[in-house]
Amino acid sequence: MEPVQSKSAAQESEVKNPKGELALIRRLAAELGCAGIEAAGGRVPFGDDMAELSTDGKLLWTTDMLMEGVDFDSRVHTWRAIGRKAMAVNLSDCAAMAATPVAALCAVALNNALSMEEALELIRGVRDGGLEFGCELRGGDTNSWNEPTVIAVTVAGRMDSGRAPVRRDGARAGDAVYLTGPVGGSILARHMTFCPRLDVARRMVSELPVRAMVDVSDGVVLDLWRVCQASGCGAVLDEQLVERAIHEDAHRLSQTTGQPSIDHALYDGEDYELIVALGAGVDPAKCSEVGLLQIGEFVPGDELAMRGVDGRRRRLEVRGWEHFR
Amino acid sequence: MEPVQSKSAAQESEVKNPKGELALIRRLAAELGCAGIEAAGGRVPFGDDMAELSTDGKLLWTTDMLMEGVDFDSRVHTWRAIGRKAMAVNLSDCAAMAATPVAALCAVALNNALSMEEALELIRGVRDGGLEFGCELRGGDTNSWNEPTVIAVTVAGRMDSGRAPVRRDGARAGDAVYLTGPVGGSILARHMTFCPRLDVARRMVSELPVRAMVDVSDGVVLDLWRVCQASGCGAVLDEQLVERAIHEDAHRLSQTTGQPSIDHALYDGEDYELIVALGAGVDPAKCSEVGLLQIGEFVPGDELAMRGVDGRRRRLEVRGWEHFR
Repeated sequence: MEPVQSKSAAQESEVKNPKGELALIRRLAAELGCAGIEAAGGRVPFGDDMAELSTDGKLLWTTDMLMEGVDFDSRVHTWRAIGRKAMAVNLSDCAAMAATPVAALCAVALNNALSMEEALELIRGVRDGGLEFGCELRGGDTNSWNEPTVIAVTVAGRMDSGRAPVRRDGARAGDAVYLTGPVGGSILARHMTFCPRLDVARRMVSELPVRAMVDVSDGVVLDLWRVCQASGCGAVLDEQLVERAIHEDAHRLSQTTGQPSIDHALYDGEDYELIVALGAGVDPAKCSEVGLLQIGEFVPGDELAMRGVDGRRRRLEVRGWEHFR
Repeated sequence: MEPVQSKSAAQESEVKNPKGELALIRRLAAELGCAGIEAAGGRVPFGDDMAELSTDGKLLWTTDMLMEGVDFDSRVHTWRAIGRKAMAVNLSDCAAMAATPVAALCAVALNNALSMEEALELIRGVRDGGLEFGCELRGGDTNSWNEPTVIAVTVAGRMDSGRAPVRRDGARAGDAVYLTGPVGGSILARHMTFCPRLDVARRMVSELPVRAMVDVSDGVVLDLWRVCQASGCGAVLDEQLVERAIHEDAHRLSQTTGQPSIDHALYDGEDYELIVALGAGVDPAKCSEVGLLQIGEFVPGDELAMRGVDGRRRRLEVRGWEHFR
């Protein structure tokens, strides 16, 4: 662990560098909030994994854009796998809200060098990635240009049987921090092949006191920090527990990068496991039955820290994948 | 007019050149149709201006992606104007289905050289372009990279008071072909500043026998051909009528390009006027009151032709803006 950069340090760096996706989203939330997108009245706040489509909260939607050279590499990945990922990142957002995906649209800017078959494979990947989870591709927009390929998928999801969307602002001090699976080292392959946690999300909301969820797209620490920020609390991770949630890919990657594997677990993006806040009184047996791994707890304040094996608390640096630096 | 390329000539060129957006969409329609997106049972067919979001046809959605250097030029256009266009092209799709826009999402891949203010201006353009027409920007996805900026907006729209979406497959031989305004030469400025024809669309569906609509994004001839293809009929344009529907920008542009202004009217893209099929018995006075311009009529067969001032019919070459050649 490096000396630590807390939330306030992150905000400081934002002042020095007025760019950064976090700052952009904060500015947008402030401006768009004025247009009526507020957390008030039970509405899903701007910046959650999905936005409201119907204002009764029964229909949600989300969009994600993937770019060649940033989110995928067509020299390495098949076009079908790329299409599947473009769908899966959106399904992961559905999982994070406990929504059931229903239908999708897909817009592409294809590099002109692609063949017809490659273009079709890309869209087939989107279609099949959705059908696996009952989400039908309904239409889209096809464009081409001489620059790298871009694909943006939009997915609509519905809330079942009167359930409210699980937002990221519902965590409270005293809640436990869980992960739906081990994390880190996704770049070795899992960032292209992960399974969106729709099934476990559905099971959790019916069997466990789920207070908040988010999917790990930009790193456990950064995404957990977003839950803390939205919920108005802090979190303390337990190093011994985190050690048990390190994916074997993080250990393998660590041998190449020389970084501690726990750093890969905490800071690598694109794991697409869910971070879950579970309220008090949760049955540990039930949690492990569902495959959940506890890694810490939410605490009062706004600090993000790690309780080391030596029992000492150290601040966690808030960093991870951030666009637009 | 050049010697003419009919529909079948276009299909021939597709065989020689197996790429092209039209061929891609046809292939996708065939493949995705198998997944249940069919014209059967009153459902909106794949490839219309909007797709169904709810299968009762009450909620539709559409997505459009704009790319730097293809759809806009940030050296010339302000970021706010670019954002407005990204919204407006989607609102134009709503107009073409006679849907009322409700809410939007926006995904961007920002070129890393953009400043925070430029990024905000882009999104403000999207937001304000929507609010003008009651369409609220609810969320999205922010990314950045070193390549040119891409923006994809998705808009959901609802059908009011039991109305069905106006599809592009409802034209019948004998229907008249109308435009909601003069066309051609949009590149001079209107492609960035056009007003989506939501108001006139709403008025038309309540006051006139509207059978089919499409917006002119890729050129009058190409988009009219799409209506003909979907509807199973042909169309004959009347040169004298078309002459009256040439935008003054087409005349101005003609002086620079040396092309006849009628060619600009027929083949330039991004006019975002609506092509409307009106059934028999329509009151011409009502049409001109609404600002509609008749340019021809739908006929049996599958040919697209122009009746010249000399009374002779010539086939119209089916071409226009097509991606992925």
